[in-house]
Amino acid sequence: MITKNTIKSVAALRQQKYRKEQQLFVVEGRKMVNELIDSDFEIISLFATEKYCAENDIPSNKVEIATEVQMEQMTGQDTAPGILAVVRQPETVSIDSNATLVLALDGISNPGNMGTIIRTADWFGIRNIVCSEDCVELWNPKVIQATMGSIFRMNIIETDLEAFLTKSQSQGKAIFGALLDGKNLFKMQDKAEGIIVIGSESHGIRPNILPLITHPITIPRAEGSLTESLNASIAAAIIMAQMSR
Amino acid sequence: MITKNTIKSVAALRQQKYRKEQQLFVVEGRKMVNELIDSDFEIISLFATEKYCAENDIPSNKVEIATEVQMEQMTGQDTAPGILAVVRQPETVSIDSNATLVLALDGISNPGNMGTIIRTADWFGIRNIVCSEDCVELWNPKVIQATMGSIFRMNIIETDLEAFLTKSQSQGKAIFGALLDGKNLFKMQDKAEGIIVIGSESHGIRPNILPLITHPITIPRAEGSLTESLNASIAAAIIMAQMSR
Repeated sequence: MITKNTIKSVAALRQQKYRKEQQLFVVEGRKMVNELIDSDFEIISLFATEKYCAENDIPSNKVEIATEVQMEQMTGQDTAPGILAVVRQPETVSIDSNATLVLALDGISNPGNMGTIIRTADWFGIRNIVCSEDCVELWNPKVIQATMGSIFRMNIIETDLEAFLTKSQSQGKAIFGALLDGKNLFKMQDKAEGIIVIGSESHGIRPNILPLITHPITIPRAEGSLTESLNASIAAAIIMAQMSR
Repeated sequence: MITKNTIKSVAALRQQKYRKEQQLFVVEGRKMVNELIDSDFEIISLFATEKYCAENDIPSNKVEIATEVQMEQMTGQDTAPGILAVVRQPETVSIDSNATLVLALDGISNPGNMGTIIRTADWFGIRNIVCSEDCVELWNPKVIQATMGSIFRMNIIETDLEAFLTKSQSQGKAIFGALLDGKNLFKMQDKAEGIIVIGSESHGIRPNILPLITHPITIPRAEGSLTESLNASIAAAIIMAQMSR
């Protein structure tokens, strides 16, 4: 039986403060939980409704049975999911120093953009992502949801981005960044190697990071277009598509 | 002076029913209103706070002065904007039949995706968009916001997509659609001409549209990637970038 305290502690994980304190996060819905189960992430609790178990042929001893009302109390979503997992945040993630392409995110603050960038990176085989310390928290439910499961397959770290890029530059790595006066992305040779820096939604790549860019690139805009910028996740996708092909 | 009835009628435009009935929509915030003023759209009312007028050097006889509280009552956003316009929906929009590339959206339902697709199309000089009748309504505030102003510069129509594509096909136009077994997008010749169909978030390109695709294309996924799909606005962006370059 699920106690009130359990429900309260799961509901508390909607807040970043408790996620950080407990080093836990929540995963909701069939697709996401199935991806979770296939991953190496440690599941602490798994709750499902009787209806969900019946519809999905899940033996009820494999999960803790929750009522619809309890699910509504636990979830942060508008519609309560049939299944919900509490998951441990991975402790030691490291970036593969031999990766051909690494993505570096400089202050991405919109959870939807963050999740979409992770999903797109996974599609193009870019498994290593370095986030600046002021990026939106990875375990935010909206980030998790927008990754569509890709979050469970990636190496993502949060670190001092300036220090990371300074070290990478000293190791001779190419650091690509989308700027207004860079080299035409579509005229680059295929299969680039290095680190791709994506700037934040509001400020682009910030002044402390700019001098570390060794290879400025530009996504050319159509002649006569008055658009000032592309959405950060769109710009990231176009660059990843072009550089990983 | 702004009456209670005025406030009520502006607030009502948060609902699609009233937008349709009145053929009006709302535009909020400095950037969006500036883009609006530069466009051919007809502004019915323009409200701003005294603070906004002072900060932006706007003579107060150019706008109707609203208090912060009135702005809060009129807006659909979490934070009340300093400036807000009521705008007439354009009456007669038509697609340029000589356009090199036209985008066709088959049931895009997420307002953020819709707005982002419009913004990206504008960047790549694709000015003509045909939406199926079940796409999210164009004048939804979240769509407007996500376009970042591009909505004021585009020809966008909502129509029977199957009929539109059937006619286009009979005129010998190429109809591109992203499918799992199409031609590698990155191996296509530059500067394609025709119509690019983007499928919905949940169902992709639907069965009634599929037989009309004359040029199936695929965004290649990295070997070993387990991602099932890309976000619709991301797929659209990668295709537009590649085909318009």
